[in-house]
Amino acid sequence: MATKFVSERNLKFLLYEVFDVEGLTRYDYYATHNRKAFDMILKEAMRMARELLYPTLEEMDRNPPELLNGRVKVHPSVGPVIKAYAEGGWLTSLVPFSHDGEQLPHLIEGACNFIFSAANYSANVYPGLIVGSSHLIESFGSRELYDTYVPRMRSGQWQGTMALTEPEAGSSLADLASQATPTGEGYYLIKGQKVFISAGDHDGVENVVHLMLAKIEGAPPGVKGISLFVVPKKRISPDGGLVSNDVVPSGVYHKLGYRGCPITQLSFGDKNDCRGWLVGEPHKGLSYMFQMMNESRIGVGLGAAAIASAAYYASLEYARTRRQGRKVNEKNPSLPPVPIIEHADVKRMLLFQRAVIEGSLSLLLQCSYYVDMQKSLKAEGAEKFDLLLEILTPVVKTYPSEMGIQSISQGLQCLGGSGYCDDYKLEQYFRDSRIHPIHEGTTGIQGMDLLGRKVTMKNGAAFRLYIAEVEKAIAQAKDHDRLKPYADMLLRALARLQEVTGHLLEMAGDKGPEIFLADATLYLEYFGIITIAWQWLLQGIAVEKAMGQTAKKTDENFYTGKWMAMKFFFAYELPKTLGLIQRLMDPDPVTVNMRTELFND
Amino acid sequence: MATKFVSERNLKFLLYEVFDVEGLTRYDYYATHNRKAFDMILKEAMRMARELLYPTLEEMDRNPPELLNGRVKVHPSVGPVIKAYAEGGWLTSLVPFSHDGEQLPHLIEGACNFIFSAANYSANVYPGLIVGSSHLIESFGSRELYDTYVPRMRSGQWQGTMALTEPEAGSSLADLASQATPTGEGYYLIKGQKVFISAGDHDGVENVVHLMLAKIEGAPPGVKGISLFVVPKKRISPDGGLVSNDVVPSGVYHKLGYRGCPITQLSFGDKNDCRGWLVGEPHKGLSYMFQMMNESRIGVGLGAAAIASAAYYASLEYARTRRQGRKVNEKNPSLPPVPIIEHADVKRMLLFQRAVIEGSLSLLLQCSYYVDMQKSLKAEGAEKFDLLLEILTPVVKTYPSEMGIQSISQGLQCLGGSGYCDDYKLEQYFRDSRIHPIHEGTTGIQGMDLLGRKVTMKNGAAFRLYIAEVEKAIAQAKDHDRLKPYADMLLRALARLQEVTGHLLEMAGDKGPEIFLADATLYLEYFGIITIAWQWLLQGIAVEKAMGQTAKKTDENFYTGKWMAMKFFFAYELPKTLGLIQRLMDPDPVTVNMRTELFND
Repeated sequence: MATKFVSERNLKFLLYEVFDVEGLTRYDYYATHNRKAFDMILKEAMRMARELLYPTLEEMDRNPPELLNGRVKVHPSVGPVIKAYAEGGWLTSLVPFSHDGEQLPHLIEGACNFIFSAANYSANVYPGLIVGSSHLIESFGSRELYDTYVPRMRSGQWQGTMALTEPEAGSSLADLASQATPTGEGYYLIKGQKVFISAGDHDGVENVVHLMLAKIEGAPPGVKGISLFVVPKKRISPDGGLVSNDVVPSGVYHKLGYRGCPITQLSFGDKNDCRGWLVGEPHKGLSYMFQMMNESRIGVGLGAAAIASAAYYASLEYARTRRQGRKVNEKNPSLPPVPIIEHADVKRMLLFQRAVIEGSLSLLLQCSYYVDMQKSLKAEGAEKFDLLLEILTPVVKTYPSEMGIQSISQGLQCLGGSGYCDDYKLEQYFRDSRIHPIHEGTTGIQGMDLLGRKVTMKNGAAFRLYIAEVEKAIAQAKDHDRLKPYADMLLRALARLQEVTGHLLEMAGDKGPEIFLADATLYLEYFGIITIAWQWLLQGIAVEKAMGQTAKKTDENFYTGKWMAMKFFFAYELPKTLGLIQRLMDPDPVTVNMRTELFND
Repeated sequence: MATKFVSERNLKFLLYEVFDVEGLTRYDYYATHNRKAFDMILKEAMRMARELLYPTLEEMDRNPPELLNGRVKVHPSVGPVIKAYAEGGWLTSLVPFSHDGEQLPHLIEGACNFIFSAANYSANVYPGLIVGSSHLIESFGSRELYDTYVPRMRSGQWQGTMALTEPEAGSSLADLASQATPTGEGYYLIKGQKVFISAGDHDGVENVVHLMLAKIEGAPPGVKGISLFVVPKKRISPDGGLVSNDVVPSGVYHKLGYRGCPITQLSFGDKNDCRGWLVGEPHKGLSYMFQMMNESRIGVGLGAAAIASAAYYASLEYARTRRQGRKVNEKNPSLPPVPIIEHADVKRMLLFQRAVIEGSLSLLLQCSYYVDMQKSLKAEGAEKFDLLLEILTPVVKTYPSEMGIQSISQGLQCLGGSGYCDDYKLEQYFRDSRIHPIHEGTTGIQGMDLLGRKVTMKNGAAFRLYIAEVEKAIAQAKDHDRLKPYADMLLRALARLQEVTGHLLEMAGDKGPEIFLADATLYLEYFGIITIAWQWLLQGIAVEKAMGQTAKKTDENFYTGKWMAMKFFFAYELPKTLGLIQRLMDPDPVTVNMRTELFND
């Protein structure tokens, strides 16, 4: 059985050679850190992933959460896992020193998160939600809210959640029906139903704190009437003990995968005794929640790439050890069979996985780097990174999610019939990964966000910054002879992207938003491929720099393999843009013209 | 919950308007049939699918087969299902009158099979294997073998299987290790292990008859030493009763989907008392088995398209009833939400499914039509259809299998979070369908078969016949003004296909088979898209003919919907060939050059 789920070598390549995380320590904000500390942190993450998370991966899948007597029973390892994260400082790794955190670069935290998610995606969701929800209170809540909730969450005693979706409001948050009634006593009375809430209730913690969207009575309609509340399952009574806050888990979903973590239905205020505390100002809830939602979207992309990484190494191990058939140019049937990794089609499936995973991971860390630069630069110059993150968030959420499934499917395919059976982990990875194009905003929603909002925001400023970033990489690549053909390919692709984008924006003016956005999902796919090509070019630059140094030559196999994966991406994946361009430039709005009654029969 | 799983209207459109099944009754072989009979047969298939197969779909999934006391226990409906197929004449629908069958056209049988598979794929595998294995005995076995086995199989008392795969011989049948030792008493002693045998043992029948590949002692190495045997689980003793034949189910796989049917490990001859009877001549087993394997490959494609059909109708029903959000050009949040089918991106996902499913089904019936023409024409002119079937078999197996998964995934996506949960059937369809690119020869094997064998066979004769068939459709389409742009697109695509194929064949000569076949899987994908475009053009011709007749105009919504699905295929799917062409014409053999040690780290 495979025990490798990530490549530490690759993580270090990206952190130190591509994104120069050490360079961040030149800035005040990260000045106390150094490479030695980073290496130790990565080592500790690997240890925890190997010893604590990976061993329960299958067991958590085989024993999914159950609703028993009003409480969701989860795998017994969940409580200890959360405690271990708390004790190891993993719940506060990004928290500033001022709030008793480790103030680590997002690059390092992202790498560790990738390790954890690759080992056991479901298990890593619980602490991930604590991190996001406590950050939300820290950012926008009152001092009192902070003191009441955050220490208990960050010590691993209390779970945090994001409670957005309702039975009639999934992708459309404007239709939220949960109500908050002011009481004049510092809290609101909450009433409503939430569905699809990850870790919405479980017996691995003492309490669950919901960061919940609801509307205050008389609020304006649509998203402008949404406020954010802290709604605990149990509230603190005047004597300091915990009493029920009238939040009841009414169901737990049986799902295709991601079974180590419950997604729940919750009922708030059935007995009119559910109290919620407003976070920040009224009616600004959605803008606050977007902080957590954007973090979560990046987290989804990271989880998707991480599961694909684990699937890749499982399929690689199988391909190395399983013997079957002979090379196509070998006709003597009495020779012994070769390991299937010798077959070109198997190498294609393995390279495809690498190209997707390592390209995705690079983009994820690119985003981490931008966050780090925001924090390092504070006000001056930080807006640039803000805009880059805005435009890249739908991409970094979607490319790994959509392509991760394809990648895992190819991993499964390497195993043939064995890939379909649960003697190997591939079938679980295939099931687990299918959630990613759905949660935290479906791929369709991300496409509309990219084309309808991010590309056009601030008069195209984010889009222009993105183009400039890719052009910068192209210019750097041109310093290396071997990279010139790839730099040229990307340059041509980038010019086409601008042309296609211009064409679509023109169509928006001529034909209105429906036709403009009809193929936004395909635009996102297209944008994603070019973005990953950019990330591969950046990796190619780092390879060329390393190969120019004698010291690094000892690692020649690593760099050559990396180079081949880059070549593969340019040869096999970048051409997929051609078909997408053809469709995006086609003026015939087939889907818009399709009348719904024509689907009959 | 969705109860529609196929469109009868579409089946009749394909049977009567595209492939003119009534025209077959002009030939002697099918002269006794007529449309009225066909309609009744289809109606009865629908009834059986609705009443017998569909109701147990989920139950069979939730209660997968178990190995208990040396026997595989399956869902209690399996026995009655097989009996119902026998009583309904479904096990002999293709069998000639001379062998007490119904001698139905393959077109009609294919349509019925599609209905059954869409209702419950797993349940339909059991009778499907009886049909294929009894046909094998009928075609190549002795009169005695026929009399002993076939009537008991076709009455539904005995299951049939195809027992090929072994632990060390999956894709590589040349490495089969099962041994057959002659005894001089009319039978051989069999010894060996088989794995991944569908319906290899179960308690829904009295006995299981394995059509098994093994090597006779002293046989030449490789595939030329393989013989075919009938090896029953229980053999008939001299007194006419059944006694154990030393065939033991040693395991049943736990798998991702397709759980209604067991795939088993079997041990033959552990006690040296397993008897097998040779089918036909020694060492010709693989060529005989290819009859069943080719039938099964078409069956896999059909099953894949059928599951995708059921998933499509489930997602369509959801999209019609689920209200969420407003049209993008509607900014008033106080208006009620619209059914999600109103959103262009949802229509895109639905049209994608239709384009894949109805294109695949058309190709499947195209193959059925070729088989019918073989039978109708007998010797004179039949070879043409033989060659067309040879070249289309890898395509009709693979396109529906690979694209069926994508199609179902888009169906699941239409449901958002609900698609991931087992309250709806989509997640099961997603799991069930993942077997298809694996069983009966993986996609990689099919790619090599198409490019390495079928395209080159008889000096390119099959390929030329294929081109001529597509050209014939293009010429017919040009009679209809509205179709001309599509005919032109396909003509250009076909010219490119010939060019790319020529380039690859040249490379075969210059650089040898490994580089030639390195991207055979992508060539198959490419060939598949063009093949489905051809099928859509044929459907477009039928639409234009129908719209020209006043009587058919009452059905205008059906034909207009069909037309839109054709447009969608040409606008969204055909362009995918552009990227594939770019890769296939690229002279750099990236995967071949990738040394296996470079995958380290």
